[in-house]
Amino acid sequence: MSALHDTALRGFASDNYSGVHPEVLQAIVDANGGHQIAYGEDAYTERLHEVFRGHLGDGIEVYPVFNGTGANVVGLQAMLPRWGAVIAASTAHINVDEAGAPERVGGMKLLTVPTGDGKLTPELVDREAWGWGDEHRAQPLVVSITQSTELGTLYTPDEIRALADHAHGHGMRLHMDGARIANAAASLDLPLRAFTRDAGVDVMTVGGTKNGAMLGEAIVVLDPEAAPGLVYGRKLNMQLASKMRFVSAQLIALLEGDLWLRNARHANAMAQRLRSSIEAGLADGSVQGVGFTQPTQSNGVFATLPEGVADALRESFRFYDWDAARREVRWVCGFDTEESDVDAFVAELARLTTR
Amino acid sequence: MSALHDTALRGFASDNYSGVHPEVLQAIVDANGGHQIAYGEDAYTERLHEVFRGHLGDGIEVYPVFNGTGANVVGLQAMLPRWGAVIAASTAHINVDEAGAPERVGGMKLLTVPTGDGKLTPELVDREAWGWGDEHRAQPLVVSITQSTELGTLYTPDEIRALADHAHGHGMRLHMDGARIANAAASLDLPLRAFTRDAGVDVMTVGGTKNGAMLGEAIVVLDPEAAPGLVYGRKLNMQLASKMRFVSAQLIALLEGDLWLRNARHANAMAQRLRSSIEAGLADGSVQGVGFTQPTQSNGVFATLPEGVADALRESFRFYDWDAARREVRWVCGFDTEESDVDAFVAELARLTTR
Amino acid sequence: MSALHDTALRGFASDNYSGVHPEVLQAIVDANGGHQIAYGEDAYTERLHEVFRGHLGDGIEVYPVFNGTGANVVGLQAMLPRWGAVIAASTAHINVDEAGAPERVGGMKLLTVPTGDGKLTPELVDREAWGWGDEHRAQPLVVSITQSTELGTLYTPDEIRALADHAHGHGMRLHMDGARIANAAASLDLPLRAFTRDAGVDVMTVGGTKNGAMLGEAIVVLDPEAAPGLVYGRKLNMQLASKMRFVSAQLIALLEGDLWLRNARHANAMAQRLRSSIEAGLADGSVQGVGFTQPTQSNGVFATLPEGVADALRESFRFYDWDAARREVRWVCGFDTEESDVDAFVAELARLTTR
Amino acid sequence: MSALHDTALRGFASDNYSGVHPEVLQAIVDANGGHQIAYGEDAYTERLHEVFRGHLGDGIEVYPVFNGTGANVVGLQAMLPRWGAVIAASTAHINVDEAGAPERVGGMKLLTVPTGDGKLTPELVDREAWGWGDEHRAQPLVVSITQSTELGTLYTPDEIRALADHAHGHGMRLHMDGARIANAAASLDLPLRAFTRDAGVDVMTVGGTKNGAMLGEAIVVLDPEAAPGLVYGRKLNMQLASKMRFVSAQLIALLEGDLWLRNARHANAMAQRLRSSIEAGLADGSVQGVGFTQPTQSNGVFATLPEGVADALRESFRFYDWDAARREVRWVCGFDTEESDVDAFVAELARLTTR
Repeated sequence: MSALHDTALRGFASDNYSGVHPEVLQAIVDANGGHQIAYGEDAYTERLHEVFRGHLGDGIEVYPVFNGTGANVVGLQAMLPRWGAVIAASTAHINVDEAGAPERVGGMKLLTVPTGDGKLTPELVDREAWGWGDEHRAQPLVVSITQSTELGTLYTPDEIRALADHAHGHGMRLHMDGARIANAAASLDLPLRAFTRDAGVDVMTVGGTKNGAMLGEAIVVLDPEAAPGLVYGRKLNMQLASKMRFVSAQLIALLEGDLWLRNARHANAMAQRLRSSIEAGLADGSVQGVGFTQPTQSNGVFATLPEGVADALRESFRFYDWDAARREVRWVCGFDTEESDVDAFVAELARLTTR
Repeated sequence: MSALHDTALRGFASDNYSGVHPEVLQAIVDANGGHQIAYGEDAYTERLHEVFRGHLGDGIEVYPVFNGTGANVVGLQAMLPRWGAVIAASTAHINVDEAGAPERVGGMKLLTVPTGDGKLTPELVDREAWGWGDEHRAQPLVVSITQSTELGTLYTPDEIRALADHAHGHGMRLHMDGARIANAAASLDLPLRAFTRDAGVDVMTVGGTKNGAMLGEAIVVLDPEAAPGLVYGRKLNMQLASKMRFVSAQLIALLEGDLWLRNARHANAMAQRLRSSIEAGLADGSVQGVGFTQPTQSNGVFATLPEGVADALRESFRFYDWDAARREVRWVCGFDTEESDVDAFVAELARLTTR
Repeated sequence: MSALHDTALRGFASDNYSGVHPEVLQAIVDANGGHQIAYGEDAYTERLHEVFRGHLGDGIEVYPVFNGTGANVVGLQAMLPRWGAVIAASTAHINVDEAGAPERVGGMKLLTVPTGDGKLTPELVDREAWGWGDEHRAQPLVVSITQSTELGTLYTPDEIRALADHAHGHGMRLHMDGARIANAAASLDLPLRAFTRDAGVDVMTVGGTKNGAMLGEAIVVLDPEAAPGLVYGRKLNMQLASKMRFVSAQLIALLEGDLWLRNARHANAMAQRLRSSIEAGLADGSVQGVGFTQPTQSNGVFATLPEGVADALRESFRFYDWDAARREVRWVCGFDTEESDVDAFVAELARLTTR
Repeated sequence: MSALHDTALRGFASDNYSGVHPEVLQAIVDANGGHQIAYGEDAYTERLHEVFRGHLGDGIEVYPVFNGTGANVVGLQAMLPRWGAVIAASTAHINVDEAGAPERVGGMKLLTVPTGDGKLTPELVDREAWGWGDEHRAQPLVVSITQSTELGTLYTPDEIRALADHAHGHGMRLHMDGARIANAAASLDLPLRAFTRDAGVDVMTVGGTKNGAMLGEAIVVLDPEAAPGLVYGRKLNMQLASKMRFVSAQLIALLEGDLWLRNARHANAMAQRLRSSIEAGLADGSVQGVGFTQPTQSNGVFATLPEGVADALRESFRFYDWDAARREVRWVCGFDTEESDVDAFVAELARLTTR
C-alpha cells in the first residue's frame, strides 16, 4: 500500500489530524519481532513504568490504554463508588466530547460549572460541592480538571494545589485530564511532577496521541488508594490492549527522553507565532476584525472572525468552529506544524479580512 | 529506544504474543505524514470500506475499532434493544474472557449453552431460544457464534446457514465473532463472503490483531438494519480511534491482498505440523501419553498431557493451561511461528514424556 | 400494631410526609381478597387504562410503577436510544433529586439549562439543542419539563405547545414529569388532556404519591411510537409490581372521580392561604423580613427568611431549606393540610420575625 | 370503587396472585394519618429495625424496598465491586426471572451452575469459583442461594453453613434470596437466625409480598462490611419508597408477631395436603399418570402430568407450566389457600386423569 493522501497537506483543525512522529514510529519498529506476553506483562510496559517513576517518583501505578475518552472514563470510574459524581468545568472534554461515556459507561454523574476560561477554582467547585450523606444527591467525590484546558489555558501549580487542598478537605479526590499535559509542561517550563503529584493530583491521564503518538494514553495513579481495582476496570471497559508493548513503546519514545517536550514546545511555539503574527497584522492593519477570546497558553488559539471569513479560510485550511453563534473558531497547532504553515495561514487570513 | 526483549524468542501461548507483520508495519509507515481528518473521515478508512466491499459486496458498513472485546460489545449492543439477550456457547470469548463487559458495558444478558466443541447448533440454540414477549425473561434476540471457535474448531457454511435460518425464523439475528476469521477462511479455503454474508450472518467482527496487525479489528455490519446507531455506540463505548487512518491502514494491508490468508494459512499449517508431528511421535513411541481433545481445524491445538509435563515444557516454551483439572493445554500458532519452533517444541515434548 | 406516631401532627416539609387519603385506602381494601393475575393482567389495571382513556382519549399506554424516580427513569429511557440525551431545567427532579439514576440506570446524559423559575422555553432549550449527527455529542432527543415545576410554578398550555412544537421540529420528543400534575390541573382549572396530550406531550408521568396515594405513579405514553419496549423497561428497571392491582386501585380511586382534583385543589388552596396570610402580615407589620422567590401557582411556597428564623420555626414545624446560602426555604402543603395548620404556622412565623 | 373481581376465586398459579392478609391491611390503616418523615426516617421503619434485631441480633442493617427483584439487585450490587460476579444456581430467580436486571442495572455477571434441585453445594460452587486476580474473568465474589428455592426445596442450616464457610474461605460473600424465607423457617421449624446469620449468611432479603403483604421486601445486611453504601444504592436503583412507613408497617405486621410463620405454615400445609392427596389418589387409582419432580418442602408442588391434562385443568384453576417440554407444572399455595381449594383441585385432577 502506498500513501492514499497528500502527505504534505496540513491544517489547524486538531492535533489528532497529524500523523506519528518518526521517533515514535521507530520505537514501534524496534519493539517488533519475537514474542512478548500479551496484556501488559511485557518488557516495554515494565520500562514505561520506570520512565514514569523517573518523572513522578515511586509508588505510582501506570495503565496504558487506547484513547483519551477511555483513559478518562476508566480513571474516573476507579476513583468513584457507584453513587459518585464528578465536579468539572462545563467545557470539560468529559462533558462535551465523550458522547456521554462517563455517565453511560462509567456510571457517574457530572456536576458541571460554567467558567470563562475552562478553569475551575475552589469557589467554582463549591457551587456543586455539597450534599454529602444525602442519598438523593449524587455524591461529589472527585474534582476533574484539564491541563492544558480545552480552551488552551493553563493552571499554575499553585492553582492546582489550591484545588487539591480544597477537594481533599472535603473528602474528594483530584483528577487531571492530561490529554495535552505535555503542552502544559512545556508552557509552564516545569517538571511533570511539579504541577501534578507535587500539587496534589490523585489520578491523571497522560496523552500520547495529540503529542506525536499513533495512539496511546496512560492513566497514572499517583495515589494508589485513590483508584482501587483499576486493572479490572481497564479490561471491563475494553481498554486493555493485547499487544500492549506497542502502546507502551510509543509512550516510552515520547517520555523517556525529551521528545514529549520537544513536540509540545514546538506546537506551543507555532500557536504563539500564529497569534503574534495576527496581532502584528491587526496592529499594522494587514489583518482586520479578528479578536481573541482566550489567552494562548498552549497549542490552541481561540479567535472570533468577521462574518464569512471562517468558511472562506477553510477552503485552504481545515479548522473547526468553536462557538458558531459568536463566530468563534479554534486553531490548533501540532508537533508537525511548520512555520510556513502558519505564515501561509496568516497571509490568507489577512487577504480575506481585508478584501 | 532499542529492543528491550529477545526478538528471536517465540512460544505457543497466544497469537497475540506475536508482533506485527512487516507488511502491516510498512502500511503504517506509508499512511504517515501530513494531516488526515480524525475519527474516520480519512482516505484509509474510506479505502478500507472498498476493500471490504470487494470481499463482501455492497450495502455493508465497516467500523474499525481497537480490540476484540470492544468489537464484540459494540457490535452486539447495536444489535439489541436494552432488554435483549445473546445466546452463545458457554466457551464463547464474550462469556469467559471479556470480564463481563458484554453485560456491564453492553447491558446485555448472555444465555449460554454448554457444547463439546465450542459450536452451537439449532438444537443447542433452542435450549435458550424461548420466552419472547415475556417481560420477565431477557429477550433472546441474537445468536453469537465464533469462527474459528475458541476451541480451534470450524463451522461449515452449511452449519452457519442453518443457524442463520433458525435464528431469523425466530426473529433473532446472527452475530459472528471473527477474531480468528482469517484462520477459518484459510482452513475452509473459501471466500470470506461464502461463510458470512452468503450464509446469513448479520453482523461480524474481523480480527486483525491475531493475524499480524499491531492492533485493530473491524465490526462489519452485513445487514445495516441489524445494527442501528453503531456509529454512536462505537464512540460512547470508547472504541473510536482519533487517528483512525493507522488502524484502517493495517487492516487494508491485511485484506486488500492476500496477506490475511497467507498469515492464516501459515499459522494453520504450523498447528497441523505440531499435531501431526506429535501424532507421529505417539505412533512410533517417541512421544507418550499425549491426547487430543479437539480436532485441529485452525491454528490452535488442544491436548492433554501426562502429569508434570506441562510445567516442565513451559520452562522452554510459554503456553496456557486450558482446563487444569484434566491437564488440558492449549497451543496456538501464529503468522510468525517457524517450522523450527514446532520441531523444537515437539522434540522437547518427546523428551519430557519419555524420561 | 397500633399507631407508633402522633397522627395529628403535620408540617410543611413535603407532600410525601402525609399519609393515605381515606378513599384511596378504601380502594385498597376493596381490591383485596381472592386471586388476581400478577404483574398487571388484573381487573384493576385494566380499569385504570379505561380511566386514563377517559381523561386522555384512546391510543395511549399506561404503566403503573412504584415511585416517581422510577417513573421518570423508565419513561425517559424508553424514549431514547442508548446514545440519547435529555434537555432539562437544571432544577429538574431528574437532575437534582434522583441520585444520578437517570444517568446510571437509565444510561442517558442530561443536558441542563439554568432557569429562574424552573421552566424551560424554546430559547432555553436551544442552548443545548444542537449537534445532531455528531457522534462525539450525546444526542439531544428528549426535552423534559415538570408540571407543576419543582419551584411551584406552572406551564400554560400554550407554553407547553410551544415547547412540543419546538422539540418535534428538531426531531425531539417532549416528556412531562407529572409528579404533581394534579396540582397543575387544579390550578389551571383545565382537563388533564388540555395541557398534556393536546399540547403535544409524548410521554408523561402521573403522580399518585404526592396526591394522597400510599405509593404509585403511572407512566402514560401518549404517543406509543415515542416509547417502544416500555413493558420490558419497567421490569428490567425493577419497577414492576407483582400485586399490581393494589397500585392500580389507588390510582383509580384518585382519577376515576374527582379525588385527584379535590386533593390538589385543597393543597393549592392551603399554599395560597399560607402565602396570602404572610403577605397580609407583611402589610400590617405582624410578619417581618419574609420575601417570596417564586409565584405560588401550585402547592409550594418558596420564601426567604431573616437569619435564624428557619431553625426556630422548625422547632414547631418541619420544612426544608431550599437554598441555604440565601436563606431560602420551601413550604409544601398537601391534601391533608388544615387551615388551622396554616394559621398556627403563620402565627409562629409572625412571632419569630417580630421578636 | 367496589371490587372489580370475584374475591372468592383462587388458583395455584403463584403466591403473588393472592391479596393482602387482613392483619397486614390493618397495619397500613394503623400507620396512616399525620405526618411522618419520608424516605425512612419514620417511626415504623425504626420499629422494623427493632423487630429484625429481635430476630437476628444487633449490628445489622435493614433496608425496606419495593419488590424482590429490586431487593436482590440492590443487595447484590452493594456486595460487589464493579468487576464482581455472582455464582448462582441456573434456576435462580436472579438468573431466570429478573429480565437481566442483575446484569443490566446491577452491573454484575452471573456465573450459573446447573443443579437438580435448585440447590448449590460447595462442589457446585467450585465449578465457577476460580480465576481470582485474572482481569479477563469477572471476579466471583458472591455466592447467592435462594431459601426456600425456586423449586420448593430447602437448605438445611448445615448446608448453608458449609456454603458460607466455603465462600468465605475463598474471600467470597454469601447472599440469600429470601423471597420465601418464611416458608423455609416454617418448614425447618427453626428461628430465622438459625439458618441465616448463625449459618454465615452475609446479606439476605426477606420477602413480604409472597407472605401476605401488599408489597414490600427488606434487604437485611447481617455483616455491614459486606454491603457498603447500600443506602445510596437503594436510592439510585429507584427502590427508595417516599412514604416508607407503609412498607415498614406491613413487614412489622408480619414479623413482630408470628403472622409470617402462620401464613407460611398454612401455605406449606396446603402444599403438603395437595401432594399427599394426589399421592393417595395415585395409590388408590383415583388419580393416574401424575409424577412429582421435586420433594415438597415448602409451598410449591412440581409435577408432571399426562398429555392434555394441564390445559384441561387450567379451565378451572390457574397455574403455570414449569418445563413444558416434559409436561412439568408448578402449583403454588399461599396464605389464603383453603382446604376446599385443594380438595376441589385434586378432585378435578382425578376426573381429568381418569377420563
